[in-house]
Amino acid sequence: MTIITSKSNNLIKKTKKLLKKKYREHSYLIEGWHLFEEAQKADAEFLNIFVLEEFSDRVEGLSHVTYVTPEVLKELTDSKTPQGIIAEVVMPNLPLADLKAGRYLVLEDVQDPGNVGTMIRTADAAGLDGVLISEKTADIYNQKTLRSMQGSHFHLPVWRTNVYEACQKLQSLGVPLVATTLSKDSVDYKTVEHKGEFALVMGNEGNGISEQMTKQADILAHIIMPGQAESLNVAVATGIVLFSLI
Amino acid sequence: MTIITSKSNNLIKKTKKLLKKKYREHSYLIEGWHLFEEAQKADAEFLNIFVLEEFSDRVEGLSHVTYVTPEVLKELTDSKTPQGIIAEVVMPNLPLADLKAGRYLVLEDVQDPGNVGTMIRTADAAGLDGVLISEKTADIYNQKTLRSMQGSHFHLPVWRTNVYEACQKLQSLGVPLVATTLSKDSVDYKTVEHKGEFALVMGNEGNGISEQMTKQADILAHIIMPGQAESLNVAVATGIVLFSLI
Repeated sequence: MTIITSKSNNLIKKTKKLLKKKYREHSYLIEGWHLFEEAQKADAEFLNIFVLEEFSDRVEGLSHVTYVTPEVLKELTDSKTPQGIIAEVVMPNLPLADLKAGRYLVLEDVQDPGNVGTMIRTADAAGLDGVLISEKTADIYNQKTLRSMQGSHFHLPVWRTNVYEACQKLQSLGVPLVATTLSKDSVDYKTVEHKGEFALVMGNEGNGISEQMTKQADILAHIIMPGQAESLNVAVATGIVLFSLI
Repeated sequence: MTIITSKSNNLIKKTKKLLKKKYREHSYLIEGWHLFEEAQKADAEFLNIFVLEEFSDRVEGLSHVTYVTPEVLKELTDSKTPQGIIAEVVMPNLPLADLKAGRYLVLEDVQDPGNVGTMIRTADAAGLDGVLISEKTADIYNQKTLRSMQGSHFHLPVWRTNVYEACQKLQSLGVPLVATTLSKDSVDYKTVEHKGEFALVMGNEGNGISEQMTKQADILAHIIMPGQAESLNVAVATGIVLFSLI
């Protein structure tokens, strides 16, 4: 058994680059056993599996396994307490042509990686058919998003795309576009009715949905807040509206 | 006008200690204009107001103002981009005897500061009468909690207390204790009925509510999740159940 013990090993140096978005073109890193097992269940393609020697029995028979020391493993994550395994996984190829009528969550320029991850996890819990995220939405392959997403991107497709065009396609298939807004120039989300299909749009943390999305939406909905808080966290708002719609 | 330019100034050194929980006995630090204005609206007692010279007009006529340089201001926060003001605020004195029948959120050992802040913000948005947090729940006066709370602790009382005794008191006043559980040995939250008052208990991120709380609760409720995610983020779950109850 060969163990990489040096941080300046070429494979480690090359892999470490994947922690930065600009180097993530075709693959990304996942950390920890939970995500690794979710990736396995989803038949994800692994390019490299970096693991501590003590866990050799858990990766027996797998290809692309490389043993590393704890110090080297730490190089490949921003987690302070890595769990013994880090894997390089191929990004899925998701043709937008696959987009069918169904139930979707749409993120328009959501900035915070933790929010984005939690929202995709919420869409997964709600049993949606997929998530559409705008180009300006936080990257789903950064470590913070991956941690809060808890493997949900292995359960449902997440398309990064022009959400206006994608929503237009859904609308042409008869799926109503429901956009949440901070204004009161809209209906109470509890009164929104649909025939089983919908695309729910959540906007940016500070600015809400764009003017373009406001115009494109079939229904504008808001959450009545009887208290003094000016707004809800966007992931919490997503849960409230989504679990009312399903 | 005197400006503190040195990080080793005694007042700065003493104030900086308040970033650590063990030194926060009677007061804590808030950062940024939004929180400062919320504190003012709530008639909070200020012990010190540290501000950059360029904002002197915004604190004109106020007591306890100390001008500092940007470098000194940075010493008093873990924020990478402080907004020009940091204030030392006295913690409120909230006698538990004030606890009356009403609508409450109860946090039993919620660990993550971001979750705790978001949950209190959600309780505020829902117009609840207060929040009860267990001794093991994350401190509400740490900077991360304060950021996600967005000033909601100035809108409603947050008691750190023995939540079992406090809930017992509420129950004796006729308030039903509704505890959410990850198990299915409970009712769908959508079917929970009440007469206008309730105490909703949310448990620890990993373990859910304790056995003690399970026994003490009048109603156990769960969220049906049609998808593949094993659980929801605890703050999202709070929003879903709370906005269904109100």
